[in-house]
Amino acid sequence: MRTLLLVAHGSRRAASNDEVRHLVERLTARTNGRFDHVGFGFLELCEPALATAIDAAVAKGARDITLVPYFLAAGTHVANDIPEVVEDRRQAHPGVRFRVTPHLGAAASLVDILLDLSNPRVEH
Amino acid sequence: MRTLLLVAHGSRRAASNDEVRHLVERLTARTNGRFDHVGFGFLELCEPALATAIDAAVAKGARDITLVPYFLAAGTHVANDIPEVVEDRRQAHPGVRFRVTPHLGAAASLVDILLDLSNPRVEH
Repeated sequence: MRTLLLVAHGSRRAASNDEVRHLVERLTARTNGRFDHVGFGFLELCEPALATAIDAAVAKGARDITLVPYFLAAGTHVANDIPEVVEDRRQAHPGVRFRVTPHLGAAASLVDILLDLSNPRVEH
Repeated sequence: MRTLLLVAHGSRRAASNDEVRHLVERLTARTNGRFDHVGFGFLELCEPALATAIDAAVAKGARDITLVPYFLAAGTHVANDIPEVVEDRRQAHPGVRFRVTPHLGAAASLVDILLDLSNPRVEH
């Protein structure tokens, strides 16, 4: 079973965490069968914590977990915190394959989104 | 003169602020004449401050300024801080047209970027 986990920072504002949940709903509707399940985990301030989200996915049958860091900058969270949690859970679940993708801010196509946003003729 | 300003949070990490500057360079190369100038301003921790960036753009001849909030969540920065700075500068520069676009996290196409990131067959 293949699982996609969106990894977000987590916020004190419930509305910001809800934005992540809505994004995960839209991702779920668009995976076209590449993933059997889409979930999410937070690093701080909000549940589920990333480790809990990984454990829950494995309990559901995940054997291949792709983690996408929902971060704009390659700061400490992306460079250290996420890899540390993943390495720890990798040792706890030796039969599971883990892959961490580049963080959102590293995606070349961000430029296109920003230009679309700046264009009043494009609907957002 | 039409100016695009990317509005970022600003970080203590120089590398994160450099990521914003590199993004602005890539934006500059891709505007296809829609903007005469692309700049950036930060809300915290890093120069130039947004108000300074706006004033500098106006001093260069900007008469139409589009601001794109480079934020994932519609938190206080997006909801209050950016509009407050823009309103203040709007009063200081009555001949200049200002437009603030939706923040990055509101862009529907973020879903496509995240799915591309999750796909090992797509180059990032």
